[in-house]
Amino acid sequence: MGEVIEVRTSDRCQLVDITAEVQRALSARGPVDGAALVYVPHTTAGVTINENADPSVAADILEHLEKLVPKGRGYRHREGNADAHIKATLTGFSQLVPVREGRLELGTWQGIFLCEFDGPRTRRVLVDFLPSRPRSGGG
Amino acid sequence: MGEVIEVRTSDRCQLVDITAEVQRALSARGPVDGAALVYVPHTTAGVTINENADPSVAADILEHLEKLVPKGRGYRHREGNADAHIKATLTGFSQLVPVREGRLELGTWQGIFLCEFDGPRTRRVLVDFLPSRPRSGGG
Amino acid sequence: MGEVIEVRTSDRCQLVDITAEVQRALSARGPVDGAALVYVPHTTAGVTINENADPSVAADILEHLEKLVPKGRGYRHREGNADAHIKATLTGFSQLVPVREGRLELGTWQGIFLCEFDGPRTRRVLVDFLPSRPRSGGG
Repeated sequence: MGEVIEVRTSDRCQLVDITAEVQRALSARGPVDGAALVYVPHTTAGVTINENADPSVAADILEHLEKLVPKGRGYRHREGNADAHIKATLTGFSQLVPVREGRLELGTWQGIFLCEFDGPRTRRVLVDFLPSRPRSGGG
Repeated sequence: MGEVIEVRTSDRCQLVDITAEVQRALSARGPVDGAALVYVPHTTAGVTINENADPSVAADILEHLEKLVPKGRGYRHREGNADAHIKATLTGFSQLVPVREGRLELGTWQGIFLCEFDGPRTRRVLVDFLPSRPRSGGG
Repeated sequence: MGEVIEVRTSDRCQLVDITAEVQRALSARGPVDGAALVYVPHTTAGVTINENADPSVAADILEHLEKLVPKGRGYRHREGNADAHIKATLTGFSQLVPVREGRLELGTWQGIFLCEFDGPRTRRVLVDFLPSRPRSGGG
């Protein structure tokens, strides 16, 4: 049904701009209206939206999440990545973005980011499309 | 496809109850079943759901977010609003609310709030509708 | 339109795995493709996704949220549960999970959790289905 994007991350914590890949995954559907569901089927990675013009915004988000939820001891989960699970619950595992005539209706400064909290790994992102009305005629 | 609500905020950080405006934006669609997508196309504002009966709840949310992510120095992003970007990632940029017969199926105490984190500004909120099944007959 | 799951919680703060109940609520719909909307119509409870194999992950999430947003004084809201309202805004009030042929497309380690932040109470969870395309023929 949907498409799958594979993302190879290179750091333990990293925000990867996947806007172009999400747009590409939608392109086979033609000039549809509705919403794109961007879903991460993991528990130590999430997905968020934020500014993708100045890369320091993504760096600030990661550094501040690390302050709020530091990696380290003091957690029960024994795999050393409890912080990653908590961070992912804070960002969330999906984003829903309006689509008009097949294009993501992101704001001027918005990009879609995979949030890696326990990398480096290969992550999967599901991109699905939910129509706002039935497609009529040729499109 | 969707409607756009314009919200003029008056403070740097503010929760603005937009429940009535979202309901109004849906009203042209008739007695539809599905979900309303409330989407903020910004990177320093978000959208959340919470209690709109006692205004102190919204004040507590804002004050506590300020404790967790204080405005100020220590961020890389040079525009002085890095905290606003981070707060928006924590609240999220969209809410999806069930709709039945054209009415938002909010809980008794729930309202929908635009979360301004870098105002005052004029913000846009997109309201879209995703049907749970095709509309049949007169509706 | 949707189904309602009732969850009786037993502690003030608790993550309750509702994955099986959500899947069951979808089962009457047949082999549909789209997304399941899991929505909590409360303001002191939320819903998240995370690992349901090792129960210490859920415990870590709850304990860390308590560190970030402690119950207690220092809030304006007089009902003693301001922390619960704030925690719910951080986790969010809905999750949207891809569905393929009637099955939740969760990742290997993912489960869906009701987040109780002001229990014990009886909570309601709405489960709705948004199709990715019209159903055709027998399904």
